[in-house]
Amino acid sequence: MVTNATAPPNAFVPPAVDIRALTALLDGEYAAVRDLVRTNLSTYASVFEEAESLGIDEFRERVRELVVALAATGQTGMGFPKEYGGGGDVGASIAAFETLAFGDLSVLVKVGVQFGLFGGAILQLGTERHHAAYLPDVISGKLMGCFAMTETGHGSNVQALGTVATYDSHSQEFVITTHGDQARKDYIGNAARHAELAVVFAQLEVDGRREGVHAFVVPIRVGGAAAPGVRIEDDGRKMGLNGVDNGRIWFDGVRVPREALLNRFADVTPEGTYESSIESPNRRFFTMLGTLVQGRVSVGGGAVNASKVALAIATKYAVRRRQFEADAGSEEQLLLDYGMHQRRLLPLLAATYALHFAQDVVRTQLHEVFSGIKDDEQARRELESRAAGTKALGTWHATRTIQECREACGGAGYLAVNRFAALKADSDIFTTFEGDNHVLLQLVAKGLLTDYASEFEDMDQLGMVRFVTGLAVETVIEKTSVHKLLERVRDLLPGGDDWDQEAGLLDPDYQLAMLRYREEHMLAGVARRLKRGVEDQKAHPGAVFSRVQDHVIAVARAHMERLVLEAFTDKLRAMPEGGNKTALRLLCDLYALSTIEADRAWFMEHGRLSVQRSKAISREVNDLCHKIRPIAVDLVDAWGIPPVMLRSPELIG
Amino acid sequence: MVTNATAPPNAFVPPAVDIRALTALLDGEYAAVRDLVRTNLSTYASVFEEAESLGIDEFRERVRELVVALAATGQTGMGFPKEYGGGGDVGASIAAFETLAFGDLSVLVKVGVQFGLFGGAILQLGTERHHAAYLPDVISGKLMGCFAMTETGHGSNVQALGTVATYDSHSQEFVITTHGDQARKDYIGNAARHAELAVVFAQLEVDGRREGVHAFVVPIRVGGAAAPGVRIEDDGRKMGLNGVDNGRIWFDGVRVPREALLNRFADVTPEGTYESSIESPNRRFFTMLGTLVQGRVSVGGGAVNASKVALAIATKYAVRRRQFEADAGSEEQLLLDYGMHQRRLLPLLAATYALHFAQDVVRTQLHEVFSGIKDDEQARRELESRAAGTKALGTWHATRTIQECREACGGAGYLAVNRFAALKADSDIFTTFEGDNHVLLQLVAKGLLTDYASEFEDMDQLGMVRFVTGLAVETVIEKTSVHKLLERVRDLLPGGDDWDQEAGLLDPDYQLAMLRYREEHMLAGVARRLKRGVEDQKAHPGAVFSRVQDHVIAVARAHMERLVLEAFTDKLRAMPEGGNKTALRLLCDLYALSTIEADRAWFMEHGRLSVQRSKAISREVNDLCHKIRPIAVDLVDAWGIPPVMLRSPELIG
Repeated sequence: MVTNATAPPNAFVPPAVDIRALTALLDGEYAAVRDLVRTNLSTYASVFEEAESLGIDEFRERVRELVVALAATGQTGMGFPKEYGGGGDVGASIAAFETLAFGDLSVLVKVGVQFGLFGGAILQLGTERHHAAYLPDVISGKLMGCFAMTETGHGSNVQALGTVATYDSHSQEFVITTHGDQARKDYIGNAARHAELAVVFAQLEVDGRREGVHAFVVPIRVGGAAAPGVRIEDDGRKMGLNGVDNGRIWFDGVRVPREALLNRFADVTPEGTYESSIESPNRRFFTMLGTLVQGRVSVGGGAVNASKVALAIATKYAVRRRQFEADAGSEEQLLLDYGMHQRRLLPLLAATYALHFAQDVVRTQLHEVFSGIKDDEQARRELESRAAGTKALGTWHATRTIQECREACGGAGYLAVNRFAALKADSDIFTTFEGDNHVLLQLVAKGLLTDYASEFEDMDQLGMVRFVTGLAVETVIEKTSVHKLLERVRDLLPGGDDWDQEAGLLDPDYQLAMLRYREEHMLAGVARRLKRGVEDQKAHPGAVFSRVQDHVIAVARAHMERLVLEAFTDKLRAMPEGGNKTALRLLCDLYALSTIEADRAWFMEHGRLSVQRSKAISREVNDLCHKIRPIAVDLVDAWGIPPVMLRSPELIG
Repeated sequence: MVTNATAPPNAFVPPAVDIRALTALLDGEYAAVRDLVRTNLSTYASVFEEAESLGIDEFRERVRELVVALAATGQTGMGFPKEYGGGGDVGASIAAFETLAFGDLSVLVKVGVQFGLFGGAILQLGTERHHAAYLPDVISGKLMGCFAMTETGHGSNVQALGTVATYDSHSQEFVITTHGDQARKDYIGNAARHAELAVVFAQLEVDGRREGVHAFVVPIRVGGAAAPGVRIEDDGRKMGLNGVDNGRIWFDGVRVPREALLNRFADVTPEGTYESSIESPNRRFFTMLGTLVQGRVSVGGGAVNASKVALAIATKYAVRRRQFEADAGSEEQLLLDYGMHQRRLLPLLAATYALHFAQDVVRTQLHEVFSGIKDDEQARRELESRAAGTKALGTWHATRTIQECREACGGAGYLAVNRFAALKADSDIFTTFEGDNHVLLQLVAKGLLTDYASEFEDMDQLGMVRFVTGLAVETVIEKTSVHKLLERVRDLLPGGDDWDQEAGLLDPDYQLAMLRYREEHMLAGVARRLKRGVEDQKAHPGAVFSRVQDHVIAVARAHMERLVLEAFTDKLRAMPEGGNKTALRLLCDLYALSTIEADRAWFMEHGRLSVQRSKAISREVNDLCHKIRPIAVDLVDAWGIPPVMLRSPELIG
C-alpha cells in the first residue's frame, strides 16, 4: 500500500512491497513451525485478558495449562530427539520459541524454563539413563522441572556458587546442602509451584576434594509438598512475568543417588573416584555451560519478536492518528508524516529487520553445532560468543523499542488493554536473565581479544588480561577475523586508506568497511590499554580491567553491530531483484547509516569521518526515513504477527 | 563515609561530605514542609504492600483514604489561599508534591489530580463565587473532582477538542455535549470512581458563534451514580498508577447554570453576550492554559525525586554486592568499583543533582509569578517555557534512570518487593501526561525562535514558522538571551573565538560557553532552515516544519541543558567553601562534561571541539566518576529519602 499523499516532492517512487513473499523470506525454512505457533497463539489469545483478570495463583495455573496444551501440538518439543517424542530439529525449536514471543511472555518464559532450561539440561548434560527416565514426560509437560543454577549471592558468576554436593561412598549418594543464605537458589522459574524435579548446580566434593560445579537431578517436591530437606519460598510478585512461579530453594542434607549426577562430562564411580574426559576444571565448567547456549539464542530471538509487536502497533497507530493542522483549516497531520516521528520509529524498524537476519545466522550456527553438522571446538566458541552478543543487542533493543513505541502512542499506550503494559513489564528482565548483558559483552570481548585461544575457556577475566598483555598488540589484531576482512577491503577499494572519504554513503562496502575499521581499531585500543596498564603502570590486572571496562564493552558492541550488518547485507545479496529487495535495501542502508550516525563522534575522533560527511550521513538518515515512510505499514505487516496479538483495539482500530 | 580501599592510586583525596548540611541545602527554604511530607510518607508506608496485595477496586479506595488523610495534615493544600483553609504558599505546595514522589506514585498522582488539576483549575480559572462554593471542601478532600480536558482524539492539541457547550439564553444555562466518540473525555483521573464534579473544557458556543475553549464546573456524579446525561466508563487497568481511577466521560445535553462557567477571563451575560478582557481567542486560550502551568512544574519535580529513589537503591546495592574476583583468591569486587558500573550510575547521579537545582529555579519562578512578586507577561511566558522544558527533561531522566538502576540491580531489581517494578510502571506516563514531551519541547523552541514576541501566544506551529520566516536570521538570534550571554563570554575569555581550545575542561566558563554556543548556533540553523524551506523552496510551512522538526526539538533540548547547567553553577557560586562545595563541584563538572560528551559529535561537526579535546573530555568523565565513587553513598543519603521508602530489604540490607 503506497500512500501517494505522503510521497516526497522529488521523484522517488516507493518500491511495491510483496508482503506475502516478504513474510516467506523472513520465515525462511521454518515457515511450517512458525505457522503452527501462529495458529496456537490465536487459539489461546484469551491469555491476554486472563493475565489481567486472574489473580496471580490462578494465572500461574492457567499458564501451566497453556504450556501443556502447546506441548501437545508438538511446538515446544521440536528440539528433543524423536525417540523420546521430540521433533529432532534444534533450529525449528528456536524458530518456534521466537514466534511464540508474539504472544504473552509468561507463556514464553515458562516454555523456556520447562523445555529449554530444565529439559535442555537433562538432554545436554545427562546421558541415556536420564534421557530415558525423564525426557518423554518432560516433553509432554507431564513432568515439570526447574533449572536451579542462579544463587542470591552469585548471579553471573556461576563458578563461585555456594551450594555443595558431597559424595558419600558408603551410601553411594550425593548429599546436597545450601551453605549460607547467599547460596540459596533464587529467581528459579517453576520452583515456587510446579516443579517436581530440579537440575541443581552445586560444587561437587568427592573425598574432601572440590571438583567444580556439576549438575544433579533432585526431586524437590513430592505430592505437591516440598521434599524432605528442601525448603522452597515464593519469590512473590514481580515486575512482570507473573504467570511464571519463580522461587527460592534451600537444601539441607538432601540425599540423591549417585546416578542423579548428570554425567555426560564427568562421573563419580561407586567407590568414590572422580572421572572426567576433560582435564581442566575451568574448561570442563565452560564446556558444560556451553551446551546450554540455546537459552541465550532463544531469548535474543524472542526479544526481537517482542519488539516487532510494539513496532507494529506504534506504526499502525501513527498512520491513523492525526495531530495539529498541517494547513490552516485542513485536517490534522498524520503522526507518521512528522519528521520527528519517523526518526523515532523507522530506525528501530530497520534495526529490527537487521536483528531478525542476525538471529537467522546464530540460529543456523546453533543448529549446525547441535545437530553435528559442524561441531568443532572453534565452531562452539564462535557460537557461544555470537549467542551472547546477539542476546545482549536483541534484548536491549527490545527494552528501548517497546519504550519508544509506548511513548509514541501517548496515553492510549498506557492502558493495559493495549499491549505495551505487559510487553514492557514482561520483557524487562530479558536484559538480565540468561546472562546479564554487560557480562555477556565481556565474554564476546574475551573471544575477540584471545581469538578463542585454546586456553580460552580456561580463562577468567584476569586470565584474559594476563593473556592479552603477554602478546604484542599486533599479534592480537592480526589474529582477528575482522583484520583479514579489512585487508581485503583495502585492496578492493580505490584510494587506499582514503576509501572512506570517496565511496558513496549507500555503498554497502563503505558501510561495512566503516564498522570493520571501528572494530579493529577499538580492539587494538583495548589491547594497548591493557598492556600499558599492566606493564608500564604496574597496576593489578583487576584494576586495569576495571579501568578499561567501558572500552571492552564498546568493542564487543562494535563487533556485534558489524556482524548484524553483515547478516543483513548477506541476506540482501542473495535476494532476487524486485520491490522487496529495494525495500530491504532502504532498511539496510538505514540500519547501517543510523548505526554509524549514533557513533559518528568516534569515527570523527579516529579520522574516519569528515565533518561534512558526518552531516551528510544525518541528512541521508532523514531521507531514508522519508522514503521508508510510505511502505512502513507493509514492512510491519510482513512479520506475520497474528492480528489478535496486536490487540490494541483503540490504537489501531 | 570515605572508603579508603577504593581511593585512586594518585593523590586525590575525596572531599568530606557533611550530609546533614547538604540535605539542608537541597531542602532549601521548604525544609519544614518537606519534613512534614517525609513524616507522612513513613506513617503511611504500608501503601507499598497494599499496592500489591489489594485488588484494583480496594486499592483505589485506599489511595483515596490516604489522600484525605494527607489533606488533614495540611501538606496538600499549601497552594490554596489561607481564607479557604489553604497554606497560601505556592512554592511550598510544589515542594510538598516533589517530596511526596519518594513514595507511592498513585498517591502522588491522585493528589495532583485533586488539588493541582481540579482544585487548581477552580482557583485559577474561577472567580470568588467558585472559590467560596468549592475550595474549602476541595482542600479537605471532602469534595473530589476531576479535570476533564483531554479527549480521545485530541491529546496534545487542546484547541481542537470536540466537546461543545452551547449557551441557552432562555434557561440561562450551558448545554454540554460530546460530539462523536473522538470527543469523549479520556484518561481522566478521578473520573471512573471518585469525582463528583468535573472541570470540563469545551468549545463555547454563544448565539451560534464559537468563542473557543472554556472551562465549566459540571456535576458528573450524584449519590455515587452518574448524573443525568453523563456517561462514565472506566479506563480499566493501566501499566501503573492503578490506585488512580482514570475514566472516560461523555456528555449528552448536560445542562449547567450560567454561573458554572469559570469566568476569570471570559463570561457570558445572562442575555447571551460573550465578554472577555482578552481580545484574541488564541491568546485567551493560552492565558487560561498558562494558569495551569503548575501541573508541569509539579510533574517535573516529582520525576526527579522518583529518580532519586531508584539511584539511592542502586548505589547502595552497588557498594554491597560483589561480583567476580579482583585478585585471584581474594573477595569478589564491589559492583561500584567497576569502571563500567560507575559510568552507568554516576553521570545519572550528577544529572539528578543538576535537575534538582533547575527545579529550584522553576519553582521559584512559579512562586513569584503566582504570588504576584514578579508577574508580568514576559515572566509568565518564560515560566511556561521553562516549566515545559524542565518537565520534559526531568521525566525522560526518570524513565532512563529507573531503567538503568533496575538493570544495575539484576534479578533482584525485578521483584516487586523492591521498588523498581512500581517506580517504572507508575512513572512511565510522566513523559506523556501534562503535555507530551516532544510537544512541550516544541513549545520551548517556539519561545526561543520568537523571543516570546507579543504575538507569541497567538501563534500555532504554522504561525511560528511564518513569523520566523518573516525575520532575518540575525534578528532571530540577536533577540535571544543566549546571544547576549555569548557576547559577554567572548569579551571575557582570552583568545577570542579560540576560547574553547584554550580553557581548562573544568573551567565553568568553558563548560557554559560550550552549551551557550551550541544553543545559539542551533537556533540560527533552525531559523535558516525554516526560511530556506518557505522562501527558496516554496514549500508549505507545515511541510517545512515537519522536515525541520528534529532540529526544533534539538535546539529546545540544548536550551534546557544550558539552563540546567546554569542553575547548578549559580548554586555552586553561592556556596561557602568546604567539603560539600568540593563534592558538588565534582558533580557539576560531571554533569557538564557528560552532557558535552553525549553531544560531542555536534561540537566536532561545528568546529568547537578538536578530536584530541573530545577524547580528553571522555577521559575526564571517567576520572570524575572515579573521584565521586567514594562519596556516592553520601550524595544519595543527602536527599533525605525516608529509609522505609527505599524498601528493597534484600538489595540494600
